[in-house]
Amino acid sequence: MYLSKFYLPLMKETPAEAQIASHRFMLRAGMVRQESAGIYSWLPLGHRVLKKIEQIVREEQDRAGAVEMLMPTIQSADLWKESERYDAYGKEMLRITDRHGREMLYGPTNEEMITAIFRSGVRSYKELPKMLYHIQWKFRDEVRPRFGVMRGREFLMKDTYSFDLTADAARQSYYKMFIAYLRTFARMGLRSIPMKAETGPIGGDLSHEFIVLAETGESEVFCHRDLLRKTMPPANVDFDGNLESYVNEHTSLYAATEEMHDKEAFEKIPEEARVSARGIEVGHIFFFGTKYSKAMKANVLGAEGKEVPVEMGSYGIGVSRLTGALIEAYHDEQGCKWPVPVAPFHVGLLNLKVGDEKIDAACAGIYRQLEAAGVEVLYDDTRARPGEKFARMDLIGLPWQITIGPRGLGNGLAEVKNRHTGQKQELPLQEAVGFVTRQVKDALKVV
Amino acid sequence: MYLSKFYLPLMKETPAEAQIASHRFMLRAGMVRQESAGIYSWLPLGHRVLKKIEQIVREEQDRAGAVEMLMPTIQSADLWKESERYDAYGKEMLRITDRHGREMLYGPTNEEMITAIFRSGVRSYKELPKMLYHIQWKFRDEVRPRFGVMRGREFLMKDTYSFDLTADAARQSYYKMFIAYLRTFARMGLRSIPMKAETGPIGGDLSHEFIVLAETGESEVFCHRDLLRKTMPPANVDFDGNLESYVNEHTSLYAATEEMHDKEAFEKIPEEARVSARGIEVGHIFFFGTKYSKAMKANVLGAEGKEVPVEMGSYGIGVSRLTGALIEAYHDEQGCKWPVPVAPFHVGLLNLKVGDEKIDAACAGIYRQLEAAGVEVLYDDTRARPGEKFARMDLIGLPWQITIGPRGLGNGLAEVKNRHTGQKQELPLQEAVGFVTRQVKDALKVV
Repeated sequence: MYLSKFYLPLMKETPAEAQIASHRFMLRAGMVRQESAGIYSWLPLGHRVLKKIEQIVREEQDRAGAVEMLMPTIQSADLWKESERYDAYGKEMLRITDRHGREMLYGPTNEEMITAIFRSGVRSYKELPKMLYHIQWKFRDEVRPRFGVMRGREFLMKDTYSFDLTADAARQSYYKMFIAYLRTFARMGLRSIPMKAETGPIGGDLSHEFIVLAETGESEVFCHRDLLRKTMPPANVDFDGNLESYVNEHTSLYAATEEMHDKEAFEKIPEEARVSARGIEVGHIFFFGTKYSKAMKANVLGAEGKEVPVEMGSYGIGVSRLTGALIEAYHDEQGCKWPVPVAPFHVGLLNLKVGDEKIDAACAGIYRQLEAAGVEVLYDDTRARPGEKFARMDLIGLPWQITIGPRGLGNGLAEVKNRHTGQKQELPLQEAVGFVTRQVKDALKVV
Repeated sequence: MYLSKFYLPLMKETPAEAQIASHRFMLRAGMVRQESAGIYSWLPLGHRVLKKIEQIVREEQDRAGAVEMLMPTIQSADLWKESERYDAYGKEMLRITDRHGREMLYGPTNEEMITAIFRSGVRSYKELPKMLYHIQWKFRDEVRPRFGVMRGREFLMKDTYSFDLTADAARQSYYKMFIAYLRTFARMGLRSIPMKAETGPIGGDLSHEFIVLAETGESEVFCHRDLLRKTMPPANVDFDGNLESYVNEHTSLYAATEEMHDKEAFEKIPEEARVSARGIEVGHIFFFGTKYSKAMKANVLGAEGKEVPVEMGSYGIGVSRLTGALIEAYHDEQGCKWPVPVAPFHVGLLNLKVGDEKIDAACAGIYRQLEAAGVEVLYDDTRARPGEKFARMDLIGLPWQITIGPRGLGNGLAEVKNRHTGQKQELPLQEAVGFVTRQVKDALKVV
C-alpha cells in the first residue's frame, strides 16, 4: 500500500480524554475515530489489525471444531422474556421500538437466540455435540464508556455456544475452547493466564477468565510465577482425545482475579513465585448447564427416547478489545510495537528523498519484491521530511522498517530497523529484502 | 467439513411465506433462519456463501484502489440533522434513544458519517483522490419486509465513498467503481447490466444501477441484446489510465429500468435485439457532487489556497441480497446450483454405505486429498439413506458431487456429477479427484 493512497489521519496532540496508552495511540495513529461516546469508526489502519485478530480467532475456533455462522445484531425482546433476562439486564441493554411498535433490542450477547436456533434444528442426541460461533458486533449501553475500545458500547465479540447431551460431554467442549483460547492469544503474541472466575448473572458452575498481564490492566490479579512460562498446546492437538492434561497444566497452579482471590492460599506459594500484577480480561468461558435449555425448552431425545434439556456453555473473546490489549502489552513512548501476526502491515518502507529517480526506483523495486513474497508493506512515498517519516513509522509501530536514503543507497545499502528491539543494521538492498522476508515468514508460522 | 459435525437444519416442507425461489431454498437448505420480520440468522451454509461474496467484493474494491475501513452500526442523530436527512428519511430509519436520552439511529447508509470522517482528516487537495469503503450491516425498517434476504430489514452492504477535487476527477472515481462492479458480479457468475438510474433522494447527476436478469426479478428492465454478450474488463486494467472506453462499451447500447424506460428509443432498436426481462438490482453507483460536502462543510484547500467543497460519490453493493440474486439466477426444481466462486463448498462427497470399512476408507482418502489441494468438501458421513443424501446434495447445490457406493467401488470407480449440467460420469477414484480438482481450480482463476 502506498501511503499517498491510504488514509492515515494522525493526531499531533494527545487527546485529553485518552488516559491509557492504547486509547492514546489508537487515536494518535489514526486507527480509530470516536463517533459517539463509546462508538468508534475503525479507520483503515485499525481495521487491518481488527481483521487480523478476527482471522486468528476464526482459525483457532475452526481448528477446535466450532462451526461459524452469523446472528443478526437486532433481536426480538420476546426471546429475552422467555429466559427472563429482559428485565434483569437493566439499562445496559439498548432497547428499541420498531415502526410497528414491536420491542426489539441490540444484542449484548446471544445465549437466547442460539438456544432458539438449536431447539428448532436439533431433535436427537445423535446430532450432538454441536459447537457454533459467530463474530458479530454487540452493544452494551455502558453508563460511562471509557478507555477507548477497551470499554466501548459497540464492540466486536466472538461468541461460541456448545451443546452436549451430558455434563461430562459438555466438559470436553469446555476443554476444547480452553485450548483454543490459549492458542488464540499466544498466536497474537499475548501470554494469557486462565483464572477461575465467578459465573455472575449468566449462571453455571465452571468458568475461567483469560487474563493478559499489562501494567495498565483494569484489575489486580494474582498468580504463580511458573504460569508465565507455560507454552501453548500444539496445533495438532487431538480435540477428540483426552484434553485434561493440557487444561491441568494451566490450572493446577494458583491464579485468581481480585474477586476470586484467596489470600491464604496465595501466601502458601513461595514468596519469590508470587506474582501480583495488573491484568486485562480478553476472554471468558462458561459452562452453565441447562440454565437456558430448561427455561427455553431446548430438549433433545436421549438414547432412551426421553426428552432431556441440552447442556450448554458459552465462550467469548473480545475481538475489538484485543486491539487495545495488544497495544497495552506492546508499546513504548514513541508508539505501538505490533507483533507480526497482528501488525496492520509487516514492513514500513521509508523513501527519504521522494522525487530522486534512483531512490524512487529502489523503493518501488523493494515494494514489488516484498509484496510478491506475501509481505505486506506500507510505503511512505509522501514528501514529508525524514524526521516526520521516522516518527510516523514509530507511532504506527510496524514490526520492521526499511529506510532508503541518498547516503546509504550510494553504497547500495538499506537500513533495516526492528521496531521491537530498536536495533538497526545496514544491509545491501537484496539482503535487506531477503532478511525481512524470512523474519516475517518465521513469525507467521503456525505451530 | 464432515456433515456430522456441521449444522445443516434442512426443512422438509416449503415454508408458506416464501414466494420466490431464493427465499424458499435458503430456508429449505438451512442457509438462513428468520429471527424477526426481515431479520435473519445466517446459518453455517448461508454464512459461507455470504463470506465468499464479501471476499470477491473486497478484492475488486482493493484492486480499484478503494481502502477498507469500518464504520459503526449505531450513529448519532446529530450528523443527520446537519445534512437535513434526519427528518427526510422517514419511518425507514430505525431511531433509538440511549440510556442518557441521546437520539441515535441504526445507520441505513453512511454518507453523513464518512463526510464527517473526511472533513476531520483531510485538509489539502494534495491528499486527493480518496476512496474509502466498508462492508457493514445496515438497517432499514421496511414497512413490509419480504422475499427473504432480498428485501430484509437488517442487511449487509458494501458502500464506497469517493472524494475528489473536481467533478472531472470524480468522474474517474466513478469509472473505477463502474469497472470494479462489472468485475465483481462477473466473478460470481452473474451477468450484470449497468442501467442509467434516477438519483432519487440521495441527489446528484450521474448514476447507474447494476441489474442482474432473472425470471423472478423485482422489476421490468429493457436492453439491447448485445449487452448480454459483453465481457468484463480484465484484472490488469490500469485504474489510473483512461477508463472511458470500458465504460462506453457497456453504456452505449440501450438499457433502462422501468422508471427510466424510453419507449421510443427502445423501439428504434431492431426488434430481434430488443430484450424485455425481469431484473434484480445488485449494485448502485452515484455521483452527487457537493450535496453533502456543502451541507456539512467538508472543504479542502485547493491549489490556489482557497477552500472548496469536495466532490463526492457513493457506491453500494447489496452483499446479503446477492445471495438471493445468485439463487434466482442459478437454481432448478431440486435446489440451488452454486457457481464455484461463491459455492459454500466446492464438492459434496457422498458415502452411500457408512460403516463399510472400504467405502469409509475410500471416502476419507478422497476427502483428505481434495482438502490438501485446497478444494472445499462437504462430506456426507451420516447414516441417512442414499435417496435422502442425493436429494440433500441437490438441494444445497454444491457444484460437484462425488459419490462412493459399494457397486462402483467394487470396480474402483467413483461417480462424479456436475450439478449445473446434471451430467454424471464414472471415473477411477484418482481420476475423479484429479478431474474435480482441475475443474474447481479453473473456475476459481481470476482473470
